[in-house]
Amino acid sequence: MKIAVDAMGGDHAPKEIILGTNQALEELQDLEVLIFGDEEKIKPYLTPMSRATIIHSEEVILGTDEPVRAVRRKKKASMVMMAQAVADGDADACVSAGNTGALMAAGLFIVGRIDGIQRPALAPTLPTIDGNGFVMLDLGANSDAKPEHLVQYALMGSIYAEKVRGIEKPRVGLLNIGTEEKKGNELTKEAFGLLKQQTNIHFIGNVESRDLLNGVADVVVTDGFTGNMVLKTLEGTAISIFSMLKSSLTSSLKAKVGAGLLKSELYGLKNKMDYTEYGGAGLFGLKAPVIKAHGSSNANAFYNALKQAYTMAQANVPAKIQEAANFVIDDKN
Amino acid sequence: MKIAVDAMGGDHAPKEIILGTNQALEELQDLEVLIFGDEEKIKPYLTPMSRATIIHSEEVILGTDEPVRAVRRKKKASMVMMAQAVADGDADACVSAGNTGALMAAGLFIVGRIDGIQRPALAPTLPTIDGNGFVMLDLGANSDAKPEHLVQYALMGSIYAEKVRGIEKPRVGLLNIGTEEKKGNELTKEAFGLLKQQTNIHFIGNVESRDLLNGVADVVVTDGFTGNMVLKTLEGTAISIFSMLKSSLTSSLKAKVGAGLLKSELYGLKNKMDYTEYGGAGLFGLKAPVIKAHGSSNANAFYNALKQAYTMAQANVPAKIQEAANFVIDDKN
Repeated sequence: MKIAVDAMGGDHAPKEIILGTNQALEELQDLEVLIFGDEEKIKPYLTPMSRATIIHSEEVILGTDEPVRAVRRKKKASMVMMAQAVADGDADACVSAGNTGALMAAGLFIVGRIDGIQRPALAPTLPTIDGNGFVMLDLGANSDAKPEHLVQYALMGSIYAEKVRGIEKPRVGLLNIGTEEKKGNELTKEAFGLLKQQTNIHFIGNVESRDLLNGVADVVVTDGFTGNMVLKTLEGTAISIFSMLKSSLTSSLKAKVGAGLLKSELYGLKNKMDYTEYGGAGLFGLKAPVIKAHGSSNANAFYNALKQAYTMAQANVPAKIQEAANFVIDDKN
Repeated sequence: MKIAVDAMGGDHAPKEIILGTNQALEELQDLEVLIFGDEEKIKPYLTPMSRATIIHSEEVILGTDEPVRAVRRKKKASMVMMAQAVADGDADACVSAGNTGALMAAGLFIVGRIDGIQRPALAPTLPTIDGNGFVMLDLGANSDAKPEHLVQYALMGSIYAEKVRGIEKPRVGLLNIGTEEKKGNELTKEAFGLLKQQTNIHFIGNVESRDLLNGVADVVVTDGFTGNMVLKTLEGTAISIFSMLKSSLTSSLKAKVGAGLLKSELYGLKNKMDYTEYGGAGLFGLKAPVIKAHGSSNANAFYNALKQAYTMAQANVPAKIQEAANFVIDDKN
């Protein structure tokens, strides 16, 4: 299994990217990596071994770059060369912690869309209180979606949950503002009708955003605008509450003593909400696995994202999505 | 100032509704109330005074009733009679903690829409960390919205923030998945262009959901589907974190001792997030103020909602909205 790695993307590149890669190489004995980036900056961190090859690249796509333009113009950027390696068949999958928009553009234009899949979708695994997590898509690959796109998201998410996360008959929910069938906007009402007809997914109906952290479904489908909005609301609320908590806990001597006694509990609580544990966000619907690791990835987060790319490639998820896509199209005619 | 009150709506009706009404009567010396509901159940709680009149009603709209049908059929329901009193000019505004959908239907069909306002909007005031709060609309009166509806929401929210909340030149933000002008879906991109042209509001551009609790704007506009989704995500995340916190804090003796020392801080934190302090949700765009108090309202929450109706009526918000609506229409021609 050969994975292409963009060593230059993310807030802590290349150090944490390479340390995470070392960890994956150590654990997965049949893993080979092609590491794209500045050779001089990579070398000090990489544990030398025959299964790791550095391919020097001059350019870097920055977080501030306009995604599509950057991918088109910076042909020698580590991210672009990484995607090209996948397109050329030199690697089975790729991982980057860099500019999300640019990675989506590189995935779409260089790796390419699976025939029959109309829109790729950004699909992270998000945390739940019980620690199991769930896959949610689309989180922003496309802001607007049609009902039939949501059906394809459901199929792709379901295949991923089953093949990579090992969930038998994953529960697929449609994100909505109420659980009743007739609830929602035009998009969700129409999508509900289509999803109900699919025989190759286990559709459990509408799910509400307030139940997401309780693990109400294994796969949650929504349009990219709503998905991105909900994700940012989850993150923002959690961050706000933790920061309020922190300032409350240091507001008096008594509170400080109390907080000291609670330290491990509070730390454990914050960890439960830490989605770097769940790997990166998959870009589903492309011909090969393309994984976006979180921009603030440390070694462990990048290691998890790399392992996710490895498992997706090993389970041959894109081929399974291709089959399912054909099935839906047949179903419609 | 005469306010019509639905005594039978909400989880703690009529007791908490009446106790909250007593409180408002005591504080606001020129307030008169018309209380609609079961006279026998209301009397034990009501402080008798000349400014409070009970109007007996036989029927009640339940939380489980289908809203539009219930309003059309249960003509003798307390909520319907309350709205009718406003339509007949017997009251200046009304307040109910009952079925939200039914109250929206009663507002639309009985009280009626302001000429020139295409869609009413549900507009609660939500909490921020600094305690100032912000008005957000639409939170679900209409699931789908057109760009021009968002402009009207902005106008109505801005007038409310200025006249009722006393904010000079309220900052109006468009809820979006990024702050840059070109971000978002078709709806927000078009709405951004329209909002930028309005001279009678202080439009500050796109705002992100993760910044809402930090008080990024005084008025936040969005379509009803997204607004409802974000509100439920905020609530759900806060509830999940507090419940995780609670179980963490009682997981060991050491933690229990720590939690005991922190009790007042944690309680204060939860209070900060308590939006019953901010009154109810206004239904903007109707000919008279219609306020939805939270379904779980206690006396204090209902008192705040009643005071909100009083202030809106006193500031003559519907007339101000009417003027602004005419101005926008002139502007477009």
